Amino acid sequence: MLILSILYVIAIIAESMTAALAAGRRSMDWVGVCLLGCITALGGGSVRDILLNHHPLTWVAHPHYLVITTIAALATIFVARIMHHLHKLFLLLDAVGLVVFTIIGCNVALELDLPLLIVIISGMITGCVGGVLRDILCNDIPLLFRSELYASVSIVTGVLYVAGLQAGYNHELVMGVSLLAGLTLRMLALRFQWNMPKFIYHRDEQ
Amino acid sequence: MLILSILYVIAIIAESMTAALAAGRRSMDWVGVCLLGCITALGGGSVRDILLNHHPLTWVAHPHYLVITTIAALATIFVARIMHHLHKLFLLLDAVGLVVFTIIGCNVALELDLPLLIVIISGMITGCVGGVLRDILCNDIPLLFRSELYASVSIVTGVLYVAGLQAGYNHELVMGVSLLAGLTLRMLALRFQWNMPKFIYHRDEQ
Amino acid sequence: MLILSILYVIAIIAESMTAALAAGRRSMDWVGVCLLGCITALGGGSVRDILLNHHPLTWVAHPHYLVITTIAALATIFVARIMHHLHKLFLLLDAVGLVVFTIIGCNVALELDLPLLIVIISGMITGCVGGVLRDILCNDIPLLFRSELYASVSIVTGVLYVAGLQAGYNHELVMGVSLLAGLTLRMLALRFQWNMPKFIYHRDEQ
Repeated sequence: MLILSILYVIAIIAESMTAALAAGRRSMDWVGVCLLGCITALGGGSVRDILLNHHPLTWVAHPHYLVITTIAALATIFVARIMHHLHKLFLLLDAVGLVVFTIIGCNVALELDLPLLIVIISGMITGCVGGVLRDILCNDIPLLFRSELYASVSIVTGVLYVAGLQAGYNHELVMGVSLLAGLTLRMLALRFQWNMPKFIYHRDEQ
Repeated sequence: MLILSILYVIAIIAESMTAALAAGRRSMDWVGVCLLGCITALGGGSVRDILLNHHPLTWVAHPHYLVITTIAALATIFVARIMHHLHKLFLLLDAVGLVVFTIIGCNVALELDLPLLIVIISGMITGCVGGVLRDILCNDIPLLFRSELYASVSIVTGVLYVAGLQAGYNHELVMGVSLLAGLTLRMLALRFQWNMPKFIYHRDEQ
Repeated sequence: MLILSILYVIAIIAESMTAALAAGRRSMDWVGVCLLGCITALGGGSVRDILLNHHPLTWVAHPHYLVITTIAALATIFVARIMHHLHKLFLLLDAVGLVVFTIIGCNVALELDLPLLIVIISGMITGCVGGVLRDILCNDIPLLFRSELYASVSIVTGVLYVAGLQAGYNHELVMGVSLLAGLTLRMLALRFQWNMPKFIYHRDEQ
């Protein structure tokens, strides 16, 4: 669907630019900025495709996505100073990316006729793994594991999407509703700082 | 074989629970606990299957393993306080997991008719990589690289298994002997703190 | 081509030995030294093959490469004390590895009839990802992202190689010229400490 393709391009640009800022915080060089941008934007889908044996990977079949994410990462170097004025816009675009990636990931698994649980997992991997790779390459514990409703938003989006399709509703409608619901949940979670409960365990390493 | 399947389920539960404790030590949230549990328990087999092009992955074909490891990780949050009383039991179960994963990994490579060296490596990857992924996601240098007979136990188990089969002995017998030998070696290594010699090099980064 | 095969073996030995030194700086045990050596030397090609669905992986089809890199890593433990006298030789061999891996990676993608941009990326992944895996396993931010002309040398080598072949020049000639150009650029970059500009960004994590 055209709208999904347009949102996908917006999402990989937004993911690449926020990853470029993370690279800048660690004083990476320009090559590092581009690599981190591409890996963050395209890594979730790549890991999904490798796990599900779905070849060729998106960027191998469509190398122009690599060009787009590289340009987005490089552009960030020059517009970084004004990007913090757009802080809220980027939080929104990041949330758009999360839910759009999730729906795309679900679609890939649906096309492969995989079990519904795997469809939801495929959505979550597509939505979340790019950020995990970014954090590993920045030598952080992945943010995904520590805070905020992020994976949870992806799971809720995927469950709504799969349940709606199973119930036989119109595809466009189901997609629109799951996207909006996921987006709303994510923005509310950011606004009101909703968090999952933490598991805190203090015994020594055994 | 039924006994191997039963031991496999016990092993992924034990791996998921010890990973959940590691997540708790880093104050991860509940989603992080579940993800780390699943990745640790099922990651070794997944990496093996990707490297050997053996699809579908175990958890893609049998999603209930994901349900089992998720429940095990979540349950850990509530039973953590009593788990340290069971410390020795979990060390044993972790050792069972190591040798069972190793044998399963060898079997996968044997079915693919791969060279015997790759069969042993396949066992080691299945046995050890889950813990490496856990340590990377926790932002540690993998324990595997630093201490204890762990990879070594996996290699010994795999060599005994492959050698026994090559020598033409009964399959169940060979499996039982390799499992027991690996398990004994691991428990002795823990009991007497056997370590591989370390390579210590102090020159500056060049 | 024979010369490429010979250079490949020299390169994996050199990569394994420098990785073994990195392992020694972190006091890893002998098993960790071997694993880090093998992963660094063979990891770039493995990641490329997984991303491009090019099976079997080099070391699965030719397990003797694993034997070679393991022996190289182990030997490093014993010759480490004299290796710093050979510091410049190893910098040269590491640069040889970078450009040889790059050409080999380009060839794999060319055989798969992939787009030219992906051919160059395939070369870069083959040349650079081994070192990235080494740095992740050593719990460092990958050097690749932070300094020196390394990925850039790989890209220049790949672009020259692809452009030369496209222009219809003799294959051996094109290969020789790209190898030499990449090698020269790398050694000049080391000699004169050429760096890519860094992107430094000080705003707080948002």
